[in-house]
Amino acid sequence: MIYVDHAATTPVHPSVLRVMLPFYREQFANPSSLYQSADMAQKAIDDARTKIALGLNVQTNEIIFTSGGSESINTALKGVAFAQSMAGVGNKIISSTIEHHAVQHSLDYLQEFGFNIVRVPVNSDGYIEPQIVAGALDEATILVSIMLANNEVGVIEPISKIATAVRSESQLMKRRIPIHTDAVQAAGQLTINPNDLDVDLVSISAHKFRGPKGVGALYIRRGTPFLPQQNGGGQERNRRAGTENVPGIVGIGEAFELAESQRKAFVHHTKNLRDRFLNSILKNIDGAICNGPRHNRLPNNANVRFEGVDGKALLQQLAEVGIAASSGSACTTASWEPSHVLIAMGIDQDEASGSLRCTFGLDNTPDDVDTIVSYLDKIVPQLRKKREMSHA
Amino acid sequence: MIYVDHAATTPVHPSVLRVMLPFYREQFANPSSLYQSADMAQKAIDDARTKIALGLNVQTNEIIFTSGGSESINTALKGVAFAQSMAGVGNKIISSTIEHHAVQHSLDYLQEFGFNIVRVPVNSDGYIEPQIVAGALDEATILVSIMLANNEVGVIEPISKIATAVRSESQLMKRRIPIHTDAVQAAGQLTINPNDLDVDLVSISAHKFRGPKGVGALYIRRGTPFLPQQNGGGQERNRRAGTENVPGIVGIGEAFELAESQRKAFVHHTKNLRDRFLNSILKNIDGAICNGPRHNRLPNNANVRFEGVDGKALLQQLAEVGIAASSGSACTTASWEPSHVLIAMGIDQDEASGSLRCTFGLDNTPDDVDTIVSYLDKIVPQLRKKREMSHA
Repeated sequence: MIYVDHAATTPVHPSVLRVMLPFYREQFANPSSLYQSADMAQKAIDDARTKIALGLNVQTNEIIFTSGGSESINTALKGVAFAQSMAGVGNKIISSTIEHHAVQHSLDYLQEFGFNIVRVPVNSDGYIEPQIVAGALDEATILVSIMLANNEVGVIEPISKIATAVRSESQLMKRRIPIHTDAVQAAGQLTINPNDLDVDLVSISAHKFRGPKGVGALYIRRGTPFLPQQNGGGQERNRRAGTENVPGIVGIGEAFELAESQRKAFVHHTKNLRDRFLNSILKNIDGAICNGPRHNRLPNNANVRFEGVDGKALLQQLAEVGIAASSGSACTTASWEPSHVLIAMGIDQDEASGSLRCTFGLDNTPDDVDTIVSYLDKIVPQLRKKREMSHA
Repeated sequence: MIYVDHAATTPVHPSVLRVMLPFYREQFANPSSLYQSADMAQKAIDDARTKIALGLNVQTNEIIFTSGGSESINTALKGVAFAQSMAGVGNKIISSTIEHHAVQHSLDYLQEFGFNIVRVPVNSDGYIEPQIVAGALDEATILVSIMLANNEVGVIEPISKIATAVRSESQLMKRRIPIHTDAVQAAGQLTINPNDLDVDLVSISAHKFRGPKGVGALYIRRGTPFLPQQNGGGQERNRRAGTENVPGIVGIGEAFELAESQRKAFVHHTKNLRDRFLNSILKNIDGAICNGPRHNRLPNNANVRFEGVDGKALLQQLAEVGIAASSGSACTTASWEPSHVLIAMGIDQDEASGSLRCTFGLDNTPDDVDTIVSYLDKIVPQLRKKREMSHA
């Protein structure tokens, strides 16, 4: 199998799994208990928190662990929105049209509670203009949420410029408008420094950078209005209740540290593969168009559409020859709706549906790329012919 | 180490870990993807769901997976409460004074949203009278949440009688009032059959029955008003978004099946140890009193208080000789507040603080019990003397 779907998920790194295992076995104690093995479990959580905090260059008490990217995002948006509205600050939230469904549908949820959601548009590359975000601001605005990099087309948003525009526009308000960035897809590929970016909340998910599924982290800048969303025991300094997933937390700490230490190599390697793939496709296959920008995108992300091709059939044919890729996000693949990201970029529904996303990893090789391209060279014309015949 | 804190958490069973491991390694695909390895991950989730559904004797589509007991409970209470209030049904929720903090603090959260929370009292054994629950009902009532068995004193609540009383009292309303039961501590020890109990939502957590931390399940009876609380992708039939924790889900399925198959042996073994412990303590140590009922409690649960003893010091002394036990719930231990359960049972704060909970497992032996009792026989008088001297 050639696996080029690293944006959907990644295999757990062997050294990550190795450090997790003792916490399933002998070191199984509940960290809240009062004996030595419980203290050791607590210390393992503290160590993992330090690794995340070091990677983000923030304080350890600004990090909470969650059950994954979706929980981090839900918690960030709802935690801030409800805290702000209960304090009577306002009810307007600014986001974009190309956010992940976890953001989109958390905002739909908040809309049912009376929040006013503004989704700013993107240009044909999926890029968000900072001034458009700032222009949407008013006295009622309580939260801004813009992703750091898009999961489907990989476009990198100008978060620090957006933050500067937001701070400038809101300077007369005498309050800081919290900015959340969904960095789930960016983690392990881009520098994530909440202070440099000047954002207040950042969501990440372990399984996107060779950590385990079922665990994520959320950065919450000290002082940010926040109503805890999972209530119960006093874990995570009362911000996220529930017995800690100790092996998972140990796993995300190790995986993030490892990803950061390998990031330069990862970027170099996957960018080469990505460019080899795109150059080859665009040169050799007629009617192939790159979705999103050629530059200013995640190094490992390629997304191309093939005119007159049914994307689902294309994926299935690739799967049959052992190539694991995606059409837009994995979630979108399941329900097989046209990608809301591509639509938001102005691509029509029919064209969007002929899209293929390949996201590379350190284990992929130039040979993998060439194999995929040679299959596409064969499959794409076949699918076009098939479609023409069925239309005739 | 003698581990008698199985109510706080349990070690993952080796055969549970064994079936989880492949899903960290070669079978790492995102279940939402479109290739064969993704289908296999999806099938593993379906199989785990079938195991839980079989154990509870319910339909598979009535089970969703969560990140643990706290999420299951939060989701059940908020999911039903918000769905009901948005439909204009009412805003009153009936619960009890001895629920776990996950229930208590989810209800506190809902109170901030304007819900009216009624917490019915318990008797000196921690027992809830069905007629008191039914008596609290009115036209505005939208949800009842009573635990199946208490995590601190092990008392088993008469859930099916409570449900009968609720159904009878509400029969003129022409709507079913959803009943949630927190079965986190009961799972693996009691039969949990939502249809026989006549309840609509049931929360369980894997790590209480030798599954992994970080995964739980929630039974939601078909037709129950429910607003999903974690929004995003279409996973779990749109009821709980987020990439599935595949190894964790495989783990809870295996652990629940195993716990059900061993339940008779577990009950028999731990009840013997528990009774040996209680009989010996009550006979040999002056001023020792059983918290909660002698019968009608979880088979593995013993909870005793020692007059004139500081419970924290007692736990620490036991920890020093390698005995891992608890004072009430693990969460309560962390913040070291007096147990709200014991207070609700009418025990005064000072007496309550001298309590010790031992919860046994299949690996414990009669020798373990005798060792603990002989230490207590030595430590309790020492601590009393120490305390008397410090008061003098």
